[in-house]
Amino acid sequence: MRTEIASLGEFGLIDHLTKDIELKNESSKYGIGDDAAVLEYPAEKEVLVSTDLLMEGVHFDLTYVPLKHLGYKAAIVNFSDIYAMNGAPKQITVSLALSKRFSVEDIEELYSGIRMACQQYGVDIVGGDTTSSLTGLAISITCIGEAEKGKVVYRNGAKDTDLICVSGDLGSAYMGLQLLEREKTVFKGEEQVQPDFTGKEYLLERQLKPEARKDIIEQLAKANITPTSMMDISDGLSSELMHICKQSNTGCRVYEEHIPIDYQTAVMAEEFNMNLTTCALNGGEDYELLFTVPIADHEKVSQMEGIRLIGHITKPDLGTALITRDGQEFELKAQGWNPLADKKE
Amino acid sequence: MRTEIASLGEFGLIDHLTKDIELKNESSKYGIGDDAAVLEYPAEKEVLVSTDLLMEGVHFDLTYVPLKHLGYKAAIVNFSDIYAMNGAPKQITVSLALSKRFSVEDIEELYSGIRMACQQYGVDIVGGDTTSSLTGLAISITCIGEAEKGKVVYRNGAKDTDLICVSGDLGSAYMGLQLLEREKTVFKGEEQVQPDFTGKEYLLERQLKPEARKDIIEQLAKANITPTSMMDISDGLSSELMHICKQSNTGCRVYEEHIPIDYQTAVMAEEFNMNLTTCALNGGEDYELLFTVPIADHEKVSQMEGIRLIGHITKPDLGTALITRDGQEFELKAQGWNPLADKKE
Repeated sequence: MRTEIASLGEFGLIDHLTKDIELKNESSKYGIGDDAAVLEYPAEKEVLVSTDLLMEGVHFDLTYVPLKHLGYKAAIVNFSDIYAMNGAPKQITVSLALSKRFSVEDIEELYSGIRMACQQYGVDIVGGDTTSSLTGLAISITCIGEAEKGKVVYRNGAKDTDLICVSGDLGSAYMGLQLLEREKTVFKGEEQVQPDFTGKEYLLERQLKPEARKDIIEQLAKANITPTSMMDISDGLSSELMHICKQSNTGCRVYEEHIPIDYQTAVMAEEFNMNLTTCALNGGEDYELLFTVPIADHEKVSQMEGIRLIGHITKPDLGTALITRDGQEFELKAQGWNPLADKKE
Repeated sequence: MRTEIASLGEFGLIDHLTKDIELKNESSKYGIGDDAAVLEYPAEKEVLVSTDLLMEGVHFDLTYVPLKHLGYKAAIVNFSDIYAMNGAPKQITVSLALSKRFSVEDIEELYSGIRMACQQYGVDIVGGDTTSSLTGLAISITCIGEAEKGKVVYRNGAKDTDLICVSGDLGSAYMGLQLLEREKTVFKGEEQVQPDFTGKEYLLERQLKPEARKDIIEQLAKANITPTSMMDISDGLSSELMHICKQSNTGCRVYEEHIPIDYQTAVMAEEFNMNLTTCALNGGEDYELLFTVPIADHEKVSQMEGIRLIGHITKPDLGTALITRDGQEFELKAQGWNPLADKKE
């Protein structure tokens, strides 16, 4: 079934997509349906705002990304930014620009992914904009969240001797992307061939349905640990470490052997003949949390599940370096994905 | 001079555009440079959020819209939404997607327009996203503002016998667009002809450099008037009146003779052989304020400069109607601009 968007019009489409949306958070006072949403945050909260613009052909390829997954991921990447401030996401606005290629059913799929993510993370959809595009799909999501006053964690608070911690594992979302890109190429050549992803489900999931680390933020609060600096890993560990060190005016030492890598990622890197550490350092789209804690928190943080200590912060003149398994020191480089570069690598 | 955006990269471009941005509002605690912006709103304020996504070829035509004007207008339309809630805009996030056609200098122009609007209206740029696009330019702005608790004005509060008021004049931005479109066509045919806009500056200004009615909101507060309902006129008076009546469960009577129309708009409509009232009712992009006040405020509102009483709210069963100069009654129709319709009219 294919219903043309033009048959509903802008207001009709918005009504159709949003008619049964309920507001669940106390801070969401009035949602969709007026010139602006109305929020009420108590005085003891800081209000956090993060925004992301995703463009078809640049950030996603609809040949292999299902619209529902795309919607889920578009919401998650924004939630991740709010968690990375030691906060909790509470509201989003969703703006979509659609070309005529898309039907009402397509947008329902996309929206159902966004709504699923919101339900999962306790976030309300409070507004947005829906319009047309001459080519392709554009998704702009703004996320509003809250943090306890005085508990916001910035990128600029890392101190000499702090421990560097990372959640989950790295490089798997990137390997998932490589896998999808390869199967797309194979598929183009020979129509009979069906992509075989057996045993590689984890990599695909990391690429197509990432999660934001709400659980880590909750664990940190429970363990009474306030990181000195934190950010989420979207462009790759190297790039993010360099941001923290630059903004905190420090250096760092990261140990190759401690970087958490999943078994499937390692197998895939071997298959693709890629350097595994490079994938983990520069892959991007991990949406894991990178944070630093005072050395006094060593024991507490060591006991946390799913957290790895990968190195420590140093004085700025020592630079930002990776120590390899054989003890060599290499300066970190931000080779993360650059959407404005002339070509994608 | 043309500097390629790729030569700076994403972070370089963001640094370049935002390095000297200062935060001036008390509620802006931390701006660009982390995973999210941090805002601090006191408990006696409601937080307002509005968002807009503008796509090249759909919302603007760079053949005749200078980038600086585009930036200014993109910010203004968001401020207008916040004023329309009886609030004041305080922060925006700016997301841009750029194709390779654009140089660093182009984006500086665009950004300078956004910054000029922010300076004019006392708004801080606190975040955003800059990325690439396969085709054209996309601009997504989210505006955060504040209103005194209990003073937010929605669309759904209009009551039977309330007076309907409108600021400024209507249809001029639409006539400005017609003028620009005509000159574009003329220009295409004959390169020697330079567009002649003498005597039509007001129409162009209304289209290319609209203002948000901050002054009206301030006047209302001064006169101690809280409208019962309010919205800004972006899709045309008819469409907006129908929103207010639908959401307030009322009808309305609007008098053709009272609709404020500028002299230049009338002259242009004559020249284009267009129905003037239709232009004023359905033109769109006026960014004037439409609001209702109790009949008891008649004297106070009559004394306000730049406000016209155009009719009154009725019981719902009387429908939404226009009374023409010769006393005939016509049902209002929302013929406003529909960016999702099959063709633009």
